[in-house]
Amino acid sequence: MLRSFIDVDPDSHFPIQNLPYGAFITDQGEIHLCTAIGDRVSDLFVLDEEGLFNGPELSGQMAFQDSSLNYFMSLGKAAWNEARSTLQSLLSADEPTLRDNEMLKDRVFFKQSEIQLVFPVEVGDYTDFYSSEQHARNVGAMFRDPENALLPNWKHLPVAYHGRASSIVMSGTDVHRPKGQILPDGGSSPKFSPTKRVDFELEVGFLAGPENTLGQPIPIDKAADHIFGLVLINDWSARDIQKWEYQPLGPFLAKNWATSVSPWVVTLQALEPFKTKAPRQDPSPLAYLNSDQRSAYDLQLDVHLKTAQMAQPYKICMSNYKNLYWSMEQQLAHHTVNGCNIRTGDLFGSGTISGDEKHSYGSMLELAWMGTDPIILPNGEERSYLEDGDEVIMSGFGQADGYRVGFGEVRGKVLPPYS
Amino acid sequence: MLRSFIDVDPDSHFPIQNLPYGAFITDQGEIHLCTAIGDRVSDLFVLDEEGLFNGPELSGQMAFQDSSLNYFMSLGKAAWNEARSTLQSLLSADEPTLRDNEMLKDRVFFKQSEIQLVFPVEVGDYTDFYSSEQHARNVGAMFRDPENALLPNWKHLPVAYHGRASSIVMSGTDVHRPKGQILPDGGSSPKFSPTKRVDFELEVGFLAGPENTLGQPIPIDKAADHIFGLVLINDWSARDIQKWEYQPLGPFLAKNWATSVSPWVVTLQALEPFKTKAPRQDPSPLAYLNSDQRSAYDLQLDVHLKTAQMAQPYKICMSNYKNLYWSMEQQLAHHTVNGCNIRTGDLFGSGTISGDEKHSYGSMLELAWMGTDPIILPNGEERSYLEDGDEVIMSGFGQADGYRVGFGEVRGKVLPPYS
Repeated sequence: MLRSFIDVDPDSHFPIQNLPYGAFITDQGEIHLCTAIGDRVSDLFVLDEEGLFNGPELSGQMAFQDSSLNYFMSLGKAAWNEARSTLQSLLSADEPTLRDNEMLKDRVFFKQSEIQLVFPVEVGDYTDFYSSEQHARNVGAMFRDPENALLPNWKHLPVAYHGRASSIVMSGTDVHRPKGQILPDGGSSPKFSPTKRVDFELEVGFLAGPENTLGQPIPIDKAADHIFGLVLINDWSARDIQKWEYQPLGPFLAKNWATSVSPWVVTLQALEPFKTKAPRQDPSPLAYLNSDQRSAYDLQLDVHLKTAQMAQPYKICMSNYKNLYWSMEQQLAHHTVNGCNIRTGDLFGSGTISGDEKHSYGSMLELAWMGTDPIILPNGEERSYLEDGDEVIMSGFGQADGYRVGFGEVRGKVLPPYS
Repeated sequence: MLRSFIDVDPDSHFPIQNLPYGAFITDQGEIHLCTAIGDRVSDLFVLDEEGLFNGPELSGQMAFQDSSLNYFMSLGKAAWNEARSTLQSLLSADEPTLRDNEMLKDRVFFKQSEIQLVFPVEVGDYTDFYSSEQHARNVGAMFRDPENALLPNWKHLPVAYHGRASSIVMSGTDVHRPKGQILPDGGSSPKFSPTKRVDFELEVGFLAGPENTLGQPIPIDKAADHIFGLVLINDWSARDIQKWEYQPLGPFLAKNWATSVSPWVVTLQALEPFKTKAPRQDPSPLAYLNSDQRSAYDLQLDVHLKTAQMAQPYKICMSNYKNLYWSMEQQLAHHTVNGCNIRTGDLFGSGTISGDEKHSYGSMLELAWMGTDPIILPNGEERSYLEDGDEVIMSGFGQADGYRVGFGEVRGKVLPPYS
C-alpha cells in the first residue's frame, strides 16, 4: 500500500490516497491552495513555484498559483490525474525530492491546527437536489399524505431547485438564528419572529469542472468528466418559515441564510475505491438519464450534536451517501438537458441524505418526526429542533482496507438571532 | 431643461437625463464601461483615465477602469451621484471641456450602431420575485382555482425563488428551444421532447449596490441605498416543462435555460422623475415590510413580436412597472430579513408584470389564456406560445416633459432545439 513519509494515523481522513484540495492563509496573509496529508497541509503554491508540477498537462500552467481552485478545476481530467499522481509521488515514502529537502519541507508543510483554512472554490451557482428517496418519502408523509408520499414526478426526474451562493460559508462559521414570517398553528395571519425550528440537512455536494456552452446539454456518459470533486454540506433550514413561504415557488428564506461546506474538496479519483452498486430504478428513467455505468459511493456520513450543556458531542445520525436514488451523473445530465450551462465551481447538493432506518435520517425534522418524537440526549436534554448554542458536527469518509478517505468535518453553532 | 452638445432625438431613450451604464468592446478588444447619449456611447474608461472624474468620491478610485461596473456599484450613493453630476456636466451643451476638444471627442464617442455592447455587471446570485398581483391572480386562476387565485401567503410577503445566474444573457442573444420532460395530457409518464410552450415573461429587475453582512438584515428604510439601478428582463420560460417539474420545490429547468437582460442599467437617480404612488396594500404588511416612503415607478413597458413571416414587429403587450404590488425596497427588506447576504451585482427580477387589462398581460400564457384564446397577428398568424423563428422585443421607458428615460430593448429570437 502506498505510504507517505508524513505519518498518517489509520483513522485520519487524509492519507496519501485522499489528497483533497483546500486553501489556507499564509503568514504573509496570502491565500495559497493546499492539500491535506495526515494532520498537515502541504502548500501547493510553493510546490508549483518550485516547478514540481512538471508533467505535460500542468507544466507552465501555474495552476496552483491562483487564490482559488477554479482555474485548475477548469482544466479537466487529464490535468487532475496528473496533479494527483505528481502529489502522490512527491509525498510518497520512497521519493526523496521532498522527503530529503528539509528547507523545502519547512516551506511546504504546516500543521492543520496552526493554520486557517478558507474555502478554495468560487461558487457561481448553487443547485440543491432532492435525491434521497427516503428523505422525500419522510417529508411527503409528514407534510402531505403517507399513502402518496412521493409526488408523481419524483421517480422520473431528479427534483431540484436553485439555492443561494452568497451565503455558502465554510465549516467553523457559526450562524445566527434567522427571523421571518411564521404562521401560527390555526392562524391565518403570519407573525414576525425568530424561527423556532432551526434544522440541519446532511448533504454531499459535487463541484463542477469544465463548463458546457449554453444551449448544449452534457450527455450522461460525459457527465463524470465535468465533476471535479465532492464536499460535505450542512444545508441549514428554518422549517416554520419554509412551511409558510414555500408555495408555489419553493423554499427561499427558509434555506438561504447559510449553507456550510467542508473545507476540503475530495476528488472523484480519490473516491474510486468506494464505488458501489447504485440502487435499482423503477420505473426505468428516460433515455437521457439512463446509463450502464450508474454507480453510487459508499461513504459513511455522521451527524453529532453538542448542546451548550454537553461536554462531548453525541451521534444523532448515521447515514450513507450510497442512499441516493439519483446519481451525480443523472443530476448533471438532467440539469443541462434543457441547455442550462454550468460554470466551473458551481455547487450541486444532493439534498438531505436519509436511509431506511430511523437513525439514518439526515435532518432533525425526520429524526424527531416533526417534533412528535424528540431526540433524547445522554444528559437528559431533549431536542426536536436546534436550540441556541447547539453545535452540529458532520463528518464523512469512505473506509478502505487500511485507510480512510474523508472530508473532515463541517461544524457550526446556532447563535441567538441578530438584534 | 438640461441639454447635451450631442443631438438627442426626443424619443430617444438616452437623453442627458438618463445616462445609463453599459460596456462595449473596443477596437483593441478590451471591455470599456460606457454611458449612452442619444445614438452614441461615451467611453468612461477614457474619461476616467483623463482624470475627469475628479470629485471627492471618485478621484483616484479608477472606478471606470475595470471591465465591469461592480466596483463602482459597490461604492454607494455618494459616488453614484457624483458620477452622474460629473457626466451631466461634461456632456452638457454649456460645458466646453469635452465639447470643444475634438481629439478627446474622437476617443470618447462611438456610434451605438457600430460597437458591440456586453453586459456590464457580474451577477453573483439572481432572485426572481412574483410581485405583480394581476400576474399571480392570472396564473392562480388558470392552474388552480379562480375563486382562490392568490395563495394565502401572497399578500403577506413578496414571494420569490432563486434563479440561475449562469444563463443570464444580453439582449441580442438568440435562444434554443429547450428539451425536457413533459407529461402528456391525461398521461402518467412523461415524454422527452422539445418544449411546445416557449414563453416570455416581461420583467424589470434591480441590481444591488453595497452588500450587507451575512446575518444582518437591510431595514426597509435603508433598502434604497443598496439599489444601484434597473434593467429590463425577458425571463424565458417553458410552460409544459414547468407544469411537470415544479412541485414541490418550484420552477427549475423551465426557467434556467436563458434570462435576457437589457444592455443598459438605468440608475435609480435617473428614474426619480417617474416616481408615483404605490398601490395600497391590504392587509397592511408586517412592520419590517412597512414604509412611509413606498413608491412605484411609472415606466411604460412594451412587448413586440415578430414572426419569421412578418416584416414588422407587432405590439402584443403594453404594461407598466407601476403595476407591481411589492416595491423594490420591500423585496430587498424581505430577502435579507433572515440575514441572507446580498452581494454587489446581484440581480432581483420583479416577476412578470401584468396589469388589469388583457393587453397588459406580461406573458403569452396570460395573453392567450393558456392557449384558449390565441393572439391573432396582423398577417393572420396565430400564437398561443412562441414558435421557432419568433423574435420577442421588449422595450421600456419613462416619459417626462420633453424627454424619455429608457432601457433600450431586450430582444431575442427562438431558435430550433439544439441537436
